[in-house]
Amino acid sequence: MTDSQTDPQDAIDATAGRSERDSRVYEHSAGDEQEGIPFVGAGPGDPKLLTVAGRELVETADLVVHAGSLVNSELLEEYCADAETVSSIGKDLEELIPLMRDAYDDGENVVRLHSGDPAIYGAALEQMDALEHEGVPTYFVPGVTAAFAASATLRTQLTLNEVSNHVAFTRPQGKTLDADEDHIAEFVEMGDVTTCVYLGTHAVADTMDRLLDQGHDPETPVAVVYHASWPDEDVIEGTIATIGDRVEEAGYRASALVIIGEAVAGDGYERSYLYDGWASRGSDDTETEADD
Amino acid sequence: MTDSQTDPQDAIDATAGRSERDSRVYEHSAGDEQEGIPFVGAGPGDPKLLTVAGRELVETADLVVHAGSLVNSELLEEYCADAETVSSIGKDLEELIPLMRDAYDDGENVVRLHSGDPAIYGAALEQMDALEHEGVPTYFVPGVTAAFAASATLRTQLTLNEVSNHVAFTRPQGKTLDADEDHIAEFVEMGDVTTCVYLGTHAVADTMDRLLDQGHDPETPVAVVYHASWPDEDVIEGTIATIGDRVEEAGYRASALVIIGEAVAGDGYERSYLYDGWASRGSDDTETEADD
Repeated sequence: MTDSQTDPQDAIDATAGRSERDSRVYEHSAGDEQEGIPFVGAGPGDPKLLTVAGRELVETADLVVHAGSLVNSELLEEYCADAETVSSIGKDLEELIPLMRDAYDDGENVVRLHSGDPAIYGAALEQMDALEHEGVPTYFVPGVTAAFAASATLRTQLTLNEVSNHVAFTRPQGKTLDADEDHIAEFVEMGDVTTCVYLGTHAVADTMDRLLDQGHDPETPVAVVYHASWPDEDVIEGTIATIGDRVEEAGYRASALVIIGEAVAGDGYERSYLYDGWASRGSDDTETEADD
Repeated sequence: MTDSQTDPQDAIDATAGRSERDSRVYEHSAGDEQEGIPFVGAGPGDPKLLTVAGRELVETADLVVHAGSLVNSELLEEYCADAETVSSIGKDLEELIPLMRDAYDDGENVVRLHSGDPAIYGAALEQMDALEHEGVPTYFVPGVTAAFAASATLRTQLTLNEVSNHVAFTRPQGKTLDADEDHIAEFVEMGDVTTCVYLGTHAVADTMDRLLDQGHDPETPVAVVYHASWPDEDVIEGTIATIGDRVEEAGYRASALVIIGEAVAGDGYERSYLYDGWASRGSDDTETEADD
C-alpha cells in the first residue's frame, strides 16, 4: 500500500458550493481523449458493447482499476491482457486514490473502468474529485447502461408510441434510500413510464408486494434480465403479481435489471408520426427530433 | 422506389396481443451478432462513442440506412466509406421497408443506424415488426444515449449520493404528448430525480414557464447540452428561471438535451457507502451492486 497524504473526504467537501464550472466542460466534447485518468463506462458486459473510445483506452492502459465481478472478465481478458488489473471491490477511497495517483504520477496510463455508464449509480465522481484534489486530472467516457442491453434482449423499446412515453432509472428503498425516497410506486402510477429498477435484484418480492399493497394492477408486465449481454444472461418474465416468486425460484440476488411496464411486452403500440405521412406534415421540431 | 407488397400497418397490428415471446429473446444475449438486419444505436454523435459491435456491423455493411442529420456525418465517413448510405428522413415505412427488404433479399449486409440508443425515442420497433412480417429477421444493438454524453461533458453523474437518487428520460407535451402525459413537473417535484428532457429543445422556455407557474424553485439548476459529443457541442447553463432566455439567445431549436436538477452542478454530494468503511460492513447485496 502506498503512503498517502490524501484525505478524500476533504476533497469531496471542497467541491460543495464551487461557484465556477471547470473550464474543461467547455473545452472538450464527450468522447474526446483528455489529459488524465479516464473513468470509462465498460458497458453492460459483452466486450463488444464497450465503446470504440473505451476499447482504445483500456487496450493502451498500463493499469486498469475495474469494478470486480461487475465487469465481465471476458472484457478484461480480451482488451487488457497486457495491463495490470486491480479490482476496486473491498478497497476504500483511502486505498484506491493513492493507488491510481501514484501509478499516474509514475507515468503509467491508468484507466478506471466502471460497469454500465458511470453516470448511473456509479460513485465515480467522488473518486474523480479526490484525484483532482491530488493534482491528477480525470474525465468521463460514457458507456451503454444495462437497461439498454436488457431492452435489446427483450426485443422492445423502453419508450413505445402510445404505450410508454417516459423512462425512469431508479432503485428501491434499503440501506441507501429511505422509504420516502423510493419512487417506484410513483413511476408505475403514472401509467406511461417504463420503470427500470437497478440494484434491486435482492428486493424484487418486497418491491412487488409494496406495489400490490398500494393497489397497482397485478397484471402489469415485469421482466427481469439477469446479466444482460453476458454469456449467462437470463430472462425471467411475469407480472407484478408473479415475478417475485419467479426470481426467488431462479435464485438471483444481484446483477439483474427489473423492468416494470407495458413496454416490456413490445406490442400494442401505435405507429409513430415519424414514418407516417411524412410528406403531409409541416415543419415541426418535435417530430424532426423524434428519431433521437 | 421498389415495388411494395407490404402494408406495414398490418404488420404492426398483428403484433398486438401476441401471446408468446419470440424465441430469440432466450437464444441470444444482447451484443450477439444475429441473423438479419441489426438496428444499431449509433451513440450520441462522436464516432468513438459507437460500440465495438456497432462499428464492426457498419464497417462490413453494404447498405446503411441512417437517421439523417441526427447521426454525425463523421461517423458515416469514418466507418461506412464503402457502403451505400441512405437517410431515412422524409421516407415513410412504405418506402423504407421495401428498400431494406429488397437489399437484404439480394444478399446485401444491411444496417439500420439510429441515433443514441434505439430503445429511447427510437421508433425502431415498428420498422422491425414490418420487416419481420416480410420475412426479414431483425435485432437490436444498444448504444450510448445523449444523456450519458451530456453528463460526461458536464463532469457529473445523473445519480449522485444524497443529491439525486433517480433519473427520468422524458419529453415535453406537444404534437405527440398531451398535457396530461407531460410528467416533467412531477419528476422535478420529487426533488431527487435528475430529469433529462429529450426532443424538447424548441420548447425549453414553455417547459420552464410551466414549472414556474406550478411553483417549482426557480433556482433549480438546468443545463442544456447541444449536440453532446459532436465537434460543435455547446453547453448552456442556468436555472429554471433563466435557461429559457439563454437557449433562445443561443438560437437552438433542436438536437439539445435539457437536464433539470441539482445533480447538474456536480457538487454537494455525500461520499457513498461504496468506498467508505468497506471493511466494517457486512454482506449487503444493495451495496455490492452499487458500482453498477
